Amino acid sequence: MKNFISLHDVENVQELVQEGLKQKQNPFADQKLGKNKTIGLLFFNPSLRTRLSTQKAAQNLGMNVMIMNVGQDSWQLEMDDDVIMNGDKAEHVKEAAAVIGSYCDIVAVRAFAGLQDRDADYREIVIEKFRQYAGVPIVNLESATRHPCQSLADLITIEEFKKTARPKIVLTWLPHFKPLPQAVANSFAEWVNMTDYEFVITHPEGYDLSSQFAGNTKVIYNQDEALKGADFVYGKNWSSYTQYGQVLTQDPSWMITKQKMDLTNNGLFMHCLPVRRNLKVTDEVLDNQSVVVQQAANREWSAQAVLKAILSGL
Amino acid sequence: MKNFISLHDVENVQELVQEGLKQKQNPFADQKLGKNKTIGLLFFNPSLRTRLSTQKAAQNLGMNVMIMNVGQDSWQLEMDDDVIMNGDKAEHVKEAAAVIGSYCDIVAVRAFAGLQDRDADYREIVIEKFRQYAGVPIVNLESATRHPCQSLADLITIEEFKKTARPKIVLTWLPHFKPLPQAVANSFAEWVNMTDYEFVITHPEGYDLSSQFAGNTKVIYNQDEALKGADFVYGKNWSSYTQYGQVLTQDPSWMITKQKMDLTNNGLFMHCLPVRRNLKVTDEVLDNQSVVVQQAANREWSAQAVLKAILSGL
Amino acid sequence: MKNFISLHDVENVQELVQEGLKQKQNPFADQKLGKNKTIGLLFFNPSLRTRLSTQKAAQNLGMNVMIMNVGQDSWQLEMDDDVIMNGDKAEHVKEAAAVIGSYCDIVAVRAFAGLQDRDADYREIVIEKFRQYAGVPIVNLESATRHPCQSLADLITIEEFKKTARPKIVLTWLPHFKPLPQAVANSFAEWVNMTDYEFVITHPEGYDLSSQFAGNTKVIYNQDEALKGADFVYGKNWSSYTQYGQVLTQDPSWMITKQKMDLTNNGLFMHCLPVRRNLKVTDEVLDNQSVVVQQAANREWSAQAVLKAILSGL
Repeated sequence: MKNFISLHDVENVQELVQEGLKQKQNPFADQKLGKNKTIGLLFFNPSLRTRLSTQKAAQNLGMNVMIMNVGQDSWQLEMDDDVIMNGDKAEHVKEAAAVIGSYCDIVAVRAFAGLQDRDADYREIVIEKFRQYAGVPIVNLESATRHPCQSLADLITIEEFKKTARPKIVLTWLPHFKPLPQAVANSFAEWVNMTDYEFVITHPEGYDLSSQFAGNTKVIYNQDEALKGADFVYGKNWSSYTQYGQVLTQDPSWMITKQKMDLTNNGLFMHCLPVRRNLKVTDEVLDNQSVVVQQAANREWSAQAVLKAILSGL
Repeated sequence: MKNFISLHDVENVQELVQEGLKQKQNPFADQKLGKNKTIGLLFFNPSLRTRLSTQKAAQNLGMNVMIMNVGQDSWQLEMDDDVIMNGDKAEHVKEAAAVIGSYCDIVAVRAFAGLQDRDADYREIVIEKFRQYAGVPIVNLESATRHPCQSLADLITIEEFKKTARPKIVLTWLPHFKPLPQAVANSFAEWVNMTDYEFVITHPEGYDLSSQFAGNTKVIYNQDEALKGADFVYGKNWSSYTQYGQVLTQDPSWMITKQKMDLTNNGLFMHCLPVRRNLKVTDEVLDNQSVVVQQAANREWSAQAVLKAILSGL
Repeated sequence: MKNFISLHDVENVQELVQEGLKQKQNPFADQKLGKNKTIGLLFFNPSLRTRLSTQKAAQNLGMNVMIMNVGQDSWQLEMDDDVIMNGDKAEHVKEAAAVIGSYCDIVAVRAFAGLQDRDADYREIVIEKFRQYAGVPIVNLESATRHPCQSLADLITIEEFKKTARPKIVLTWLPHFKPLPQAVANSFAEWVNMTDYEFVITHPEGYDLSSQFAGNTKVIYNQDEALKGADFVYGKNWSSYTQYGQVLTQDPSWMITKQKMDLTNNGLFMHCLPVRRNLKVTDEVLDNQSVVVQQAANREWSAQAVLKAILSGL
C-alpha cells in the first residue's frame, strides 16, 4: 500500500480487516518489519485514541515513533500557494512536509475540518499537501472529510461482534451543541458501503451527508423507524453539510436511550469516542449495550494492519 | 504488586527500598522483563522529575513508553457520574481509562489536588477512577493526597546517607505564598512511619496534616526545638488541611537557613523539588548541606523498583 | 568531544563534516554505540527540524530519547543567582540541570535569545548554566548566539553541492517584520571562517554582526555587488546587534529574487528554515534554485556526527 489517506488507497478491504484480526492474535509477529523505520505522527488537533493506538501499533511492528504537535511544538504552517508570508504562519507546508518526510519513512497526519469553507475542507488541503510534498507514504489520522483508521477499526469490530453474516447497521446522527466535522460519518458510510452488510442512515432533515460518501445508502429521517431490527447502532454527531458547518437542531429526542435500543435486534451501540454521556447516549446504553471500548481497542489493530501493509511496500 | 497507588499496595517497604538500591547498582539487569510491554504516562499537571525518571526507569527495564498531557494533547475528562456532559469536558474517564488501559500494560497518572473541596481531594477521585476502569495496574505519579514514588525515593536516599541505624528525621513546613497540596508531606509521613526512624513533624499552628497520614507522629510547633539533633531535615510547604487549601501564614522565620541547620546533628536538607531558593531554604543550605539532587536522582531507582515489581506480577 | 556548545568544542571541523557524510551513507552502522544511553532534549522554544533530526539521529545511534518542553511540560526555570524566588519561576536551573543530568547521558538544549539585553544574551546564560550544572555533555540546539548543529549541516550541504574546490559563499541579510536572533548568522560566519571558501557578508547598514563571529569577513553593503559570482547564497534575517534587537529596516529590495540569483554563478539558495516565502525569498527561487530541503535533511547527519563524537568519549 502506497498511502492510507482514504478507502481508495485500499486494494481489498476484507483482507485488511482480516489482517487487523490477525495482528490482534499475534501483535509482535512482524516486529522485524519496522526495524530502523521511523513514523512521524503530526497533530494539528487533539487526539487520545489515535495518538496512542498508532504509536503502539508502530512500536509493535518495531518502528521508532516521533510525535509532534504542529503549531505548538513547532511553527504554524501556511497551506496556500502564492502568498506573501507576512502573518502568523512562519513556515510553508511545502518545506515542512518535505523536511519531515526526509526524517521519516511514513508520515501520519491529523488535521480536522475548519468547518468554515466547505470547498476548502472537501479538497482536503492539509493532507493532500503532505501527500504532494512529503515524498513518503502518508497515513490519515483524521482529515477534514475522512477518518479511515477509525472506519477500519469499526469494520474489525463489527466482524468480531456480528451474530449473522449480514447484520443490519444503522448510522444515526446524535444531538450536540457544537458543530462537529462530518469526517467520521463520511468515512463510516464509505467503508460500510464496501461490505455487503445492510446499511441505513438516519438523521434530521438538513443533515444529509455528501453523496460522495453516502452514495445510494437508504436515508430514513425517522430514527425509530431506522433503528428497527438493527444489529449495530453507530452513533455520531455531525454538523450540516448542505448548510455547511451549521448546527440546525439539538433535538434531544435523537439521543440513544434504552428505549431506542429496545427497537433493535438486541443491537450493540458503537461510537468512535470521545462521547458525551447523557447528551448523545445515556449511561445505561453505554454501560450495558455498547462495544465502544472494544472498538477503540481495535484502533491498535487497525493501525497495525495499515502500517504493516505500508511497510511491506517500502 | 498489583498497583502502586499508595503504601497499602506495598507488601514490604524495606524490600522495595533495597530493590531500588539494587537497581541503581545494575540498571539494565532486568531489561528483558519489560520487552514488548508498554507504560502510559498521563499528566494532568506539569512534571519534570516524575516525567523523566519514570520514562527512564521504564526504558531501563526494556519497556516502551507513551506520554500524554491530558486535556492538552487530548480532551478534558469528566470525572463525575450521572452528569449530562454538555460543558467543557468532552470525554468521560470511564471510557478514557478503559481505552488507555487497552493500549497499555501499566498506566501511570499524575493528578494534583484541586484544593477547593477537601472531601473530593481526599477521596482521590481521579486515580481511583483509573484504578476502577483501566483494567491494568496503576502507578501513582502524585495524586491529590499522596506521592508514593517520591516517598520511596526519599527512603532510598535516607538509607544511603544515614550515619546511624536510627536517624532522626524532621519533616518541617516551609513558607510559600501559594497554596500547595499536602500530598508530599502526607506521603512522607506515612512512609517514614513504616520505618523505625525517629520522626518529628514541625509546622505552624493550623497546618496539622490529616491524622490518616500523620498517625501518632509527634508534632512540635516550635521549629528550632524540633530541629535539634536532626540527621535529616525534610522541608516542604503545604496549605492547611483543617482550613482546607488556605495559606494561613507566610512567616519567613520558617525558612531553613544555615542557623537553623546549626541546630541539627550536622543534618542534611531534603526536598522533593522544585524548591524556591531563598523563600523556603537559603542558597547556603542548598549548596552545602543538602542532598536534594541525589534524592531526585533516586526517583529513577524508586520508579524502577516499582515497575519491576509490577512487571513481575503481570 | 566533551560538549557541542560552539565551534570551540570541535577539534577538527573538516573531519566532523566528513563524519556527517559518512553517517548519511550508513545510518545504522554505529547503533551499538548508543545502547542503553539516553539523550534529553529540552526545548525552551519551538522547533521542527532540530527536534526531529536530533531525535532521529539519536535513535539511529541506538539511543533512548526523552523530550521535554520546558516551562510547559515542567516548570519555568530561574536562571539568576542570589534571588528570592517569589515570582513565576518555581525551579532554579541549578537543581533542574543537575537532576536532568542525573537521568541523561547527554543533555541537548534549545533556548533562543531574549533580544532585550545584549550582554545577557551574549553571555549565553541558559546553555552555560546547563554546562555548569548538568554534569554531562551538553549539545546546543540553538542558543542565544549560536546554532552549531545548523552550521555543521550547512557545511555538509556545501560540501555535497559545491562544484569548485573553493566556492564563493555569500551570507545575505533578508527583510523581516519581526526582530530575530543573530544566532544562525553568527554561527554560519564562525564556521565558514574555519574553511578556505571565499566568504562575503552583505546586509544593510546597522546590521553588522558581532566581530566575535564575523571576524575579518569582508562586508559589502550593496547586495547586488556582493552576490556577483556567488556559488551559494545563504539567506537569513537578523535584528541589529549594534542597536540590539531592533528592526532598523524592512527594505523589500533585499528579498532574494530570480533577478538577484541571476547575478550569481548559477548559485544555489540556502536557508536554515523556516523561511517566509515572498517576504524573504520568492517562490521562484525556492522552488528552482534552492537546496533548503536537502540542507534541512542534513540536520540528521550533522546531529549524528556530533552525537557519535560525544558518545565515543563517554
